[in-house]
Amino acid sequence: MMCVRRGRPGAEEDIQTMNTWFNKFGFATPSGQCIDPDGKEIKPALEKFRDQINQSNDDISCCLITLMSHGREGGYILGKDGIGASLEEIFPLFNNVLCPKLQQKPKVFLIQACRGGKRDAGVSSTDQLSIETEDNDDVDEIRRLPTASDYYVVYSTQKGYVSLRNDVIGSRMIEIMDQVFSVHGMEWHIGDLFTKVCTQQIW
Amino acid sequence: MMCVRRGRPGAEEDIQTMNTWFNKFGFATPSGQCIDPDGKEIKPALEKFRDQINQSNDDISCCLITLMSHGREGGYILGKDGIGASLEEIFPLFNNVLCPKLQQKPKVFLIQACRGGKRDAGVSSTDQLSIETEDNDDVDEIRRLPTASDYYVVYSTQKGYVSLRNDVIGSRMIEIMDQVFSVHGMEWHIGDLFTKVCTQQIW
Repeated sequence: MMCVRRGRPGAEEDIQTMNTWFNKFGFATPSGQCIDPDGKEIKPALEKFRDQINQSNDDISCCLITLMSHGREGGYILGKDGIGASLEEIFPLFNNVLCPKLQQKPKVFLIQACRGGKRDAGVSSTDQLSIETEDNDDVDEIRRLPTASDYYVVYSTQKGYVSLRNDVIGSRMIEIMDQVFSVHGMEWHIGDLFTKVCTQQIW
Repeated sequence: MMCVRRGRPGAEEDIQTMNTWFNKFGFATPSGQCIDPDGKEIKPALEKFRDQINQSNDDISCCLITLMSHGREGGYILGKDGIGASLEEIFPLFNNVLCPKLQQKPKVFLIQACRGGKRDAGVSSTDQLSIETEDNDDVDEIRRLPTASDYYVVYSTQKGYVSLRNDVIGSRMIEIMDQVFSVHGMEWHIGDLFTKVCTQQIW
């Protein structure tokens, strides 16, 4: 866990909450306490954590990496000196080549940070809610929604990579979707369907 | 549904498969048949589709937008003339401001396209599989994995936007995680937990 405290009141509360859940879920924390590094120390700290995992003799079923700090547009998380580290360079540190110990194990990243300076003013919902106040008058209140919500985007490949299509059968993702939907399409939640489509493309 | 056929053998099979599932799931297709546009026609075609949704008197429970074509690094999907349209400009066409009819309804995007030119050579798994061949000899086969798999990344905000943190309580996402995990943390799948965290941040 990394948490930058400087200029981030509320950080201690986040650390406390995360520690509670680390304990409840039985996560070990080989890198010791929460770190609060400079920008250039972020990647080496994660590499050290990764190497400890690789060298461990224990069975490891899951890895949770929590990064809480200021952030900047373009995928940067900042150290306490305001210097950024690129998330696109951080994620691969734990891939199947560099972290064989975590092959086929979930690698969960929690990124609590800004991703730019835009603020969403939201939009009035077309729904109206009647709510009861303490003196029991009905008051009409208009819900506000974020500008964008309820999106579910499925890509056939990872960012930067080619996508597979067979000249005779058609695209690989569509083929696997067809297989998975044929068995589970009328019963499962869309999230479970596409998790299955994703894993089935790997094997 | 959009599907570029030029230089994409197998495209007809994809269209057929998708049409089967559009029908099975009972999707109406107000924009008619599958389109095969030039690059500059993609956004106007989607705007027309969106306007038909907005003007519909029917209840609409879900919207599925399937875009199948060549693609290019940086988030571009190409028309049949090779001119690209930016996905970052396409997604907002259906947001809560521009498409009020779909407020609180799932907007599902299937993007079957390349996202760059990289090819993943993969990595040998640390597992070994014994498989039986037709003549019943046991053969050791080494599984190959993609370089990156089993990642689950949670961001506290949308790309480009600020993230909320209360000076006293701590970060909004961590606060909601704590609430959701307290009720469901020991029972639910991680995907369901963070779907709940996401929706609870909206309301």
